Amino acid sequence: MTPRIALDAMSGDHGPSVVVPAALKILSEEKNLELILVGDETVLEPLVADQPARVMQRISIRHASQKVEMDDPPSRALRNKRDSSMRIAINLVKDGEANACVSAGNTGALMATARYVLKTLPGIDRPAIITPLPNMLGKTTHVLDLGANIDSSPEHLFQFAVMGSILTQAVENLPNPRIGLLNIGEEEIKGNERVKDAAKLIMPVSAINYVGFVEGDDIFKGTVDVVVCDGFVGNVALKTTEGVAKMISHFVKESFTQNLLTRLAGLISLPILKNLGKKLDPRRYNGASLLGLRGIVIKSHGSADILSFTYAIREAIIEVEKNVPSQISHQLTSLLNERRRIE
Amino acid sequence: MTPRIALDAMSGDHGPSVVVPAALKILSEEKNLELILVGDETVLEPLVADQPARVMQRISIRHASQKVEMDDPPSRALRNKRDSSMRIAINLVKDGEANACVSAGNTGALMATARYVLKTLPGIDRPAIITPLPNMLGKTTHVLDLGANIDSSPEHLFQFAVMGSILTQAVENLPNPRIGLLNIGEEEIKGNERVKDAAKLIMPVSAINYVGFVEGDDIFKGTVDVVVCDGFVGNVALKTTEGVAKMISHFVKESFTQNLLTRLAGLISLPILKNLGKKLDPRRYNGASLLGLRGIVIKSHGSADILSFTYAIREAIIEVEKNVPSQISHQLTSLLNERRRIE
Repeated sequence: MTPRIALDAMSGDHGPSVVVPAALKILSEEKNLELILVGDETVLEPLVADQPARVMQRISIRHASQKVEMDDPPSRALRNKRDSSMRIAINLVKDGEANACVSAGNTGALMATARYVLKTLPGIDRPAIITPLPNMLGKTTHVLDLGANIDSSPEHLFQFAVMGSILTQAVENLPNPRIGLLNIGEEEIKGNERVKDAAKLIMPVSAINYVGFVEGDDIFKGTVDVVVCDGFVGNVALKTTEGVAKMISHFVKESFTQNLLTRLAGLISLPILKNLGKKLDPRRYNGASLLGLRGIVIKSHGSADILSFTYAIREAIIEVEKNVPSQISHQLTSLLNERRRIE
Repeated sequence: MTPRIALDAMSGDHGPSVVVPAALKILSEEKNLELILVGDETVLEPLVADQPARVMQRISIRHASQKVEMDDPPSRALRNKRDSSMRIAINLVKDGEANACVSAGNTGALMATARYVLKTLPGIDRPAIITPLPNMLGKTTHVLDLGANIDSSPEHLFQFAVMGSILTQAVENLPNPRIGLLNIGEEEIKGNERVKDAAKLIMPVSAINYVGFVEGDDIFKGTVDVVVCDGFVGNVALKTTEGVAKMISHFVKESFTQNLLTRLAGLISLPILKNLGKKLDPRRYNGASLLGLRGIVIKSHGSADILSFTYAIREAIIEVEKNVPSQISHQLTSLLNERRRIE
């Protein structure tokens, strides 16, 4: 099967100037892939006009007259932008014309539109956002939810654990991913009631490899493969991570450019620093999944560059190949049955 | 006035082997300081026996027959360890024999004991934990609460804002610190109700320089001087920060020790890397304050080494000199009056 992926070509900070080159780049790398560029055809057509026939066979343009702005509230995107590139890309997934879609548009609008058009899977109340983050073992830790939900109930945290487990099995080829619930480290006052109650729901389910509570630093220790948390908490953890990494990178640059001597040392260390930068390059971790929908929707960082956007497309390809939504739906049904038997 | 500070000499991962050398070190640096070592006198006396008279004049030992273990629940510390070094150190603050105390003992027990013995200031429902963190501007951002409270109400977040503002004014000599409320970045669904309601309480109070919502990365950008959040969220942000920093430091070391060539580059870059390490050294940020009590209690990291513990003592000295609790009490009264006038 050839994956067909719809790209919202107009959204994000850079729109077509990033999405189109990223599309052409990944088409040259992935010979078994078809892409649909969704957006203003008068803008998009000239950008692919000079491509050879072998590329043009695998790329098409679907016109959309509108665009969801980065500051459009979800309600406006839903009501007033029914012909936006974002909406049409999601429609293509719903109609079976595409197996997945990728958008760098604003998260709130993307989540609301995807949920409205595609609907959630049976047994899932709310979709969640999951992203991989690097850990000390050189592997990845998947964290959800990252902001689609706030004040998540124990039942929702349970659903996140199921979805996170299945996605990680699929995309990392891990048969039995370890699941941790994000909590705080003080004894007795350990955690809030919702986290404790979520643990009680998750623990008895044999299909989830639940290892217990974890703390913020465990994300980067590789203690578990999936960290489950409320979206408010997950969003703060993600943004904090970005902040610390940027600060350290800023101080590293500053240190090596202070004077002639430090610049020389920097020059000598350049291959090492570059390698290090590559290992921790946030672009490699671009592509958050909107999980729990009847279709695959990948959110790229709004400020993604070309390389970064190709990683988001790659995430979509993997999820298409593994058929993540149907795996979630299938396993969730049997998990809920197991839970019913326990109760 | 000579600050007199009681040190819980038995708690923490290392007990007297860290606390006593740290005490001697800071006494040699701060000529206007008196310390009381609280703990088992048979252990402590030999450790200071060979000190010259000019040191012995400024250090004394107060016997305590018990010790709060790192895994003791707060209830056990309170009920069964009334002669612990932690409890006696706090008692000394209550009785006016010491102006502040410092402990590396477990946070839950320390908070519960301090709250029980010292009581909260008028107008403060719950104490909070605040710590400085480095930011990109080379300054510090103070973050509270870090885990003393979970599910903080808008009123509690308001009190944190007041306490954080006053502490930062005092210890950083900042006349008008900028206060931000930690939130998540998605529009329309922006934040939970508690954060939004807290903003409504803080905004009209002219004595608080409230600048609005901030996100996790703002802690390290230096956007504001004080970040106010619920203790669950703050604890996750703090632990996440530690985790990212450790991972990056691990990869830096790994990169520079891969082979002979990288080791050579590492040797050349050593002064730069050392300088960088110093700038971001978590030991420099040791010493979290338990704010909102009728007395000064400083919590050192449990695993603190000698240098690190001296920073916690320094924090105590500054807060004694600035008389932080009475400033909080004083300003809170006038703030609450101002709020009442508005309502």
